Amino acid sequence: MPKQVDHPERRAMIALALWRVVDRQGWSAATMRTVAQEANVSLGQLQHYFRTRQEMLTFAMSYAAEQTADRVARRLDARADSPHDILRTAVTELLPLQPESRATSRLNAAFVLEALHDSALRQQAGQGLRDGRAQVAELIRASISAGLISSDRDPDVETDRVIALTGLAPLIELDVITPEAALAAVDRHLDDLFTP
Amino acid sequence: MPKQVDHPERRAMIALALWRVVDRQGWSAATMRTVAQEANVSLGQLQHYFRTRQEMLTFAMSYAAEQTADRVARRLDARADSPHDILRTAVTELLPLQPESRATSRLNAAFVLEALHDSALRQQAGQGLRDGRAQVAELIRASISAGLISSDRDPDVETDRVIALTGLAPLIELDVITPEAALAAVDRHLDDLFTP
Repeated sequence: MPKQVDHPERRAMIALALWRVVDRQGWSAATMRTVAQEANVSLGQLQHYFRTRQEMLTFAMSYAAEQTADRVARRLDARADSPHDILRTAVTELLPLQPESRATSRLNAAFVLEALHDSALRQQAGQGLRDGRAQVAELIRASISAGLISSDRDPDVETDRVIALTGLAPLIELDVITPEAALAAVDRHLDDLFTP
Repeated sequence: MPKQVDHPERRAMIALALWRVVDRQGWSAATMRTVAQEANVSLGQLQHYFRTRQEMLTFAMSYAAEQTADRVARRLDARADSPHDILRTAVTELLPLQPESRATSRLNAAFVLEALHDSALRQQAGQGLRDGRAQVAELIRASISAGLISSDRDPDVETDRVIALTGLAPLIELDVITPEAALAAVDRHLDDLFTP
């Protein structure tokens, strides 16, 4: 009788192996072969889960997005958190400030670059960013309605400005600014925004 | 008698070939061999100018930084431009809004990722970012002294927020927002900053 295999768990384990390879050696090192080695499975076993490198990358990105969403959700208290605090948590979880968010931040940056040369990845990366943007826009619109943000503000412009804060990532990665300085910039931005 | 060779021009020509390869196929495709092909020189000739792939990448990045600085300088009128306009020009030249700035924006993003796994590139990329940051900080400090920006503003925090606007790049690249929307976010940010 064949052994019962937990497919989702195995796929997640492979995604984590991919992240470790990308984190250590960069995106171009993440081939089917190196990821199989890192995950301690045979190439044949890996191909059972992902037929192509692209399938593997696509899954790894979806999984990264899910993990980021989970981290944000875990840090939030649905009853108590203000829109200000929800945005702060979402932005800081996208910045390379801790090992987990650093891994997903690098993966996202690499994914955007890879997507420029691959239409399927491009579609997926674009959709992920559009979904994230829509969530931020909804929070900002609700905050304007609730009088937490001035009604003079254009919700679309302010949404793009909040998402642009992920542009602090290279400054943090290359030790140009400290994590504390990055948080100060995020806080100043949100404090300016949340002015009735 | 050996032919007189214009070395700087030849090196620049090779850097441009590298950019085209990166722009079309991504960073990992930019090997000595593919760049030599694209530049229409032999591998031996290429190695005459750059002994290693890393030397070639390092030069290409310096050249990209110079080109960006030149583009900014060309768009500025030293006598007439306000600090507001200088910052606007610098930020928009770092965003992928035109073919030239798109090429350097992608190259910069790829360079940051590559630098995470290579200490020499990391040093170079960090220094480039520190130099750019120092120039922005100087403009912002001068603007505070001149009363163009409120003295309540922390110049370091505001410097990081201006540089963070490069975080609009992935949104533009993946067609999540239009170039016009990106410019609206930049303008709103600078208008908010330049409030006495």
